[in-house]
Amino acid sequence: MEAYDMDKRILGIDIGGTTIKSGIFDQDARLLRKWSIPTRKEDEGQHILSDILQTSAKFLQENGLAFEDIQGVGVGIPGPVLHASTVTGGTNLGWQTINIAETLAPHFPNADIRCSNDANAAALGEVLSGAGQGIRDAVMITIGTGIGAGIIIDGKIHNGAFGGGGEIGHLHVNDRETRKCGCGHTGCLEQYCSAPGIVREAKRFLAEFNTPSILRGKNNLTSKDVLDAARSGDAAACIIADRTGDLLGKACSWVSCVLDPALYIFGGGVSNAGDVLLGRIQKAYRKYAFHVSGNAAFRLAALGSDAGIHGAARLVL
Amino acid sequence: MEAYDMDKRILGIDIGGTTIKSGIFDQDARLLRKWSIPTRKEDEGQHILSDILQTSAKFLQENGLAFEDIQGVGVGIPGPVLHASTVTGGTNLGWQTINIAETLAPHFPNADIRCSNDANAAALGEVLSGAGQGIRDAVMITIGTGIGAGIIIDGKIHNGAFGGGGEIGHLHVNDRETRKCGCGHTGCLEQYCSAPGIVREAKRFLAEFNTPSILRGKNNLTSKDVLDAARSGDAAACIIADRTGDLLGKACSWVSCVLDPALYIFGGGVSNAGDVLLGRIQKAYRKYAFHVSGNAAFRLAALGSDAGIHGAARLVL
Repeated sequence: MEAYDMDKRILGIDIGGTTIKSGIFDQDARLLRKWSIPTRKEDEGQHILSDILQTSAKFLQENGLAFEDIQGVGVGIPGPVLHASTVTGGTNLGWQTINIAETLAPHFPNADIRCSNDANAAALGEVLSGAGQGIRDAVMITIGTGIGAGIIIDGKIHNGAFGGGGEIGHLHVNDRETRKCGCGHTGCLEQYCSAPGIVREAKRFLAEFNTPSILRGKNNLTSKDVLDAARSGDAAACIIADRTGDLLGKACSWVSCVLDPALYIFGGGVSNAGDVLLGRIQKAYRKYAFHVSGNAAFRLAALGSDAGIHGAARLVL
Repeated sequence: MEAYDMDKRILGIDIGGTTIKSGIFDQDARLLRKWSIPTRKEDEGQHILSDILQTSAKFLQENGLAFEDIQGVGVGIPGPVLHASTVTGGTNLGWQTINIAETLAPHFPNADIRCSNDANAAALGEVLSGAGQGIRDAVMITIGTGIGAGIIIDGKIHNGAFGGGGEIGHLHVNDRETRKCGCGHTGCLEQYCSAPGIVREAKRFLAEFNTPSILRGKNNLTSKDVLDAARSGDAAACIIADRTGDLLGKACSWVSCVLDPALYIFGGGVSNAGDVLLGRIQKAYRKYAFHVSGNAAFRLAALGSDAGIHGAARLVL
């Protein structure tokens, strides 16, 4: 390995609530080495950046690299990020307002340093390095406790004027709902299609109808239980999966009437039962979508929990 | 006027089905001179470009300019445009496939030449030079025979992967509709909120309910009649205007969950009765929108039929 090659390296860092993942990437966004450390949130999160620097030094050295060889550092952060550099609280890491880019800068004298919200960074990673395989206009939808989307336009994250870009969990889908969503409104998409939403809808259906189901009487029902039961052909579970897929497909048809992306990628906990939902979503999408957008592709996320470091690296590539 | 100033001029051309508008702009996108000529569609539209060149030569000369002084030519075209240069039919101008940029290029030796769909160009003009006053992330919604939107992201038109960006007239808003939209689906936004949609909904309401109304028995009812009646407080017309505003506001809340623009601009025939609708749209938007996007601005278009030439000039500025 020659010096002119060695000195072109990127560090991608994905700070999560329990684990910090990091990776060394080359200029072609290939992952060369990765590692994880626990996130120490105590003492207002003051150990987090020093832990990152300490372990980075070790792994860089093992790969024959020094901080000076790093040309770019991308950081994914679980919360809102201003000016690609600054967190202002709301991260669950104990941090108050910190300019992460400025804090890291003295350690990386030759690096461009950029930060982003972790969900957006993961979307960028999936689109450019994962399931998107280089498609530059795509939407990655993450279904878990809530529903969010990362909007990638021309290979870049679209945050929106007020930071609300991709908040598709709060698409208003039901005028007749009376229960409140966490956002204060009623009838939001994630009230029905998030993991807890699927469980709630299943319980409501089972209470209202006599359809036989292996889900009846099950303790601590989870969305995985519901989707697994749908996979095995359980009649009640299939109805819930159909409704979930129909709403998600309709939501995607709305996204296409606005943005018309080439590709939708689904990630997050619920999409691990992906095959059960993906076909239903796509079928509903074709029913609702304006014809020119009918051929948008639908795929499951491919990078798993590595999406964050890939996307972090893409922030500076 | 000195030579170095004179030679920095832009031509903005807006080709419509009945009229071609043109304007000379300076580098700061200020309109210096404008003129219109009829669109001669006969003989497969072969006179259109030569008419444009002939009158442009005349008006440029009157302003002490020659074709050589033009640094950029932007052209808005009523139909789909590929690669910012080429129409492939579907323009209603009689044209078959023509590369407009290449056809004009020999006449403008120093100019960058770009074409765009006219609705998108008008949106760009309104956002950057009109009601948007320089805001770079905005959506312009045009309500007339149909409903369309121009999506402006970071000061540029967003067409989408399949050219379906901004097709918000085909947002699916009603699962129970049985009548078909022109697109082949049922329950599209423009079935209710376009000019013919408003008339249809008014007639349906008047047939179904006994609410007194000055609209009853009116021949050739128009959307303007309905909105004028709503302005004067007519009970039935107010209900139709409320429903129209509610649906449009809900649609904007969906757009914000995806794109989160800073501003919505309303143009087109229906929005000439703008004050009646705009407040209702905004009220509904606040009811449905995710809180971070709640402060998006709502304005009426400001440039009228000049939006097209302003936007055409912006294509090359």
